Amino acid sequence: MVQQPFIDYYKEKVARFEAHLAETFPDIPPPVAILDESMRYSLLAGGKRLRPILLLTTIECAGKNADFALPLACAIEYIHTYSLIHDDLPCMDDDELRRGQPTNHIKYGEEIALLAGDALLTHCFSLMSSSTLLEKISAVGLLRAIHILAESAGVFGMVSGQVADIQKYMTLEPEETLTFIHSHKTGALIKAAIQIGALLAEVGDSDFEQLTGFGVEIGKCFQIQDDILDVTGSQELLGKTPGTDEKNKTLTYPSIFGLENSKELANSCYQQALDHLDRTGLQTLRLRELAGFVLKRDH
Amino acid sequence: MVQQPFIDYYKEKVARFEAHLAETFPDIPPPVAILDESMRYSLLAGGKRLRPILLLTTIECAGKNADFALPLACAIEYIHTYSLIHDDLPCMDDDELRRGQPTNHIKYGEEIALLAGDALLTHCFSLMSSSTLLEKISAVGLLRAIHILAESAGVFGMVSGQVADIQKYMTLEPEETLTFIHSHKTGALIKAAIQIGALLAEVGDSDFEQLTGFGVEIGKCFQIQDDILDVTGSQELLGKTPGTDEKNKTLTYPSIFGLENSKELANSCYQQALDHLDRTGLQTLRLRELAGFVLKRDH
Repeated sequence: MVQQPFIDYYKEKVARFEAHLAETFPDIPPPVAILDESMRYSLLAGGKRLRPILLLTTIECAGKNADFALPLACAIEYIHTYSLIHDDLPCMDDDELRRGQPTNHIKYGEEIALLAGDALLTHCFSLMSSSTLLEKISAVGLLRAIHILAESAGVFGMVSGQVADIQKYMTLEPEETLTFIHSHKTGALIKAAIQIGALLAEVGDSDFEQLTGFGVEIGKCFQIQDDILDVTGSQELLGKTPGTDEKNKTLTYPSIFGLENSKELANSCYQQALDHLDRTGLQTLRLRELAGFVLKRDH
Repeated sequence: MVQQPFIDYYKEKVARFEAHLAETFPDIPPPVAILDESMRYSLLAGGKRLRPILLLTTIECAGKNADFALPLACAIEYIHTYSLIHDDLPCMDDDELRRGQPTNHIKYGEEIALLAGDALLTHCFSLMSSSTLLEKISAVGLLRAIHILAESAGVFGMVSGQVADIQKYMTLEPEETLTFIHSHKTGALIKAAIQIGALLAEVGDSDFEQLTGFGVEIGKCFQIQDDILDVTGSQELLGKTPGTDEKNKTLTYPSIFGLENSKELANSCYQQALDHLDRTGLQTLRLRELAGFVLKRDH
């Protein structure tokens, strides 16, 4: 069978995902139309959709049609979107641009942006606990997926990474600090996307473990590449102002290891990610290509 | 059997609940000890604990021991606490006092308060999806409880109430606006607490409906009383500055209906709440007393 080129595969997946994402959007009460607008503005604003595509592709690598998991792929994007909105707030990174557009609080004001983030985060769990999902996924499976996502987004993952990122004084060495920040702030949710995919595809314990390892490595690879792009990327491609890490004195891979070593490090994570895939019994072509996409992206 | 006086019953329930609440607190990674401190500061700071006690008491009214539901009673308090922290933020109500103590952002800074709120909200769903709960509650039951809570805290409840509350221009008449704000902002979570209790106690459809009606009425009663106390209460008892509603030109029951009519309105909600209980086949004494507590509280 001739394989569709990766880029077409990815675009098709994103289009299918985004169509479903719009369908999951809740009917918000008319008196608070501003909330509806503000949530849509960030949720339906495009982006790479990396986490949901990782979730869906993991299921397909186990030889299954992933359509049944679209609602959970959407749920993870609600969480990711909330995190971007809160991240951009004046008391956090105070960013004015995101994907080339004004950030949510620039457009709707700080208080609506705060509440839109809260609403997206909360609605994620509303989606994941919907009784209609029980036609295709067991109740225990849904609970496990909810648990994985909540743990990776909360104190054992994303939020702790955020706190570490904004803390002025850490007791750890810079290298350990950097690892802590990124494994929690970005890595946890990427790993969770793959674990939820693996769980829903009902892979065996050994494959689950290897896929988890794959998730950890591409999470690292993603973040190192992000740091590199902040040094080398253009505003046009990034959709945000490059050089902000240096301006904000953010701890980054290039600032600690230098640019060339960071590139090598990203490549080594990529290789380790592929090694994990080699140790599974799954059809891993698309996941390998996704890992390459994470490594080679220019925005 | 001689009944324990209500006040002793309530204190005992709160003590039991708070002991369990402390046990549910997650082991936050040491590098972000500040997050641990900030979350504990607000979650374990006392308060009426009304929502969890309503949940537990609803179960007992159905003749069951409510201990198995303690983790879910805790979960609802995580959500309530997050909402208070975000509510107090400078971009929202900009409050400096809560329960007589500095608010979270005064104590830990705005960015940590924001993230502590996010973490509490997220961890609520982590608690509710814990596999250890499956020993006592069915997976479908847990999913339904998660769904009720997420819907009542998100766009169909609390967050929409918040948005309505801060909006300068509403298309509705003042009276409808007030009803919208409070049924969403405060009412939804109080109703959810009772519905989750009813669900876990496995009451029949008719009792579920009546308990829901009870929840709606005491939610209203609670809010009217809150508005009245803002006019008549003392700072010492309230633990916050009275008169802030008038200062902030907040739409309140006394501002629309006058103080005396508001008191009558609160009393009428109380009566309707009791009527709902009369239509159940449950042992409703403690819920009746709780309704009285909501009506007659002075803080």
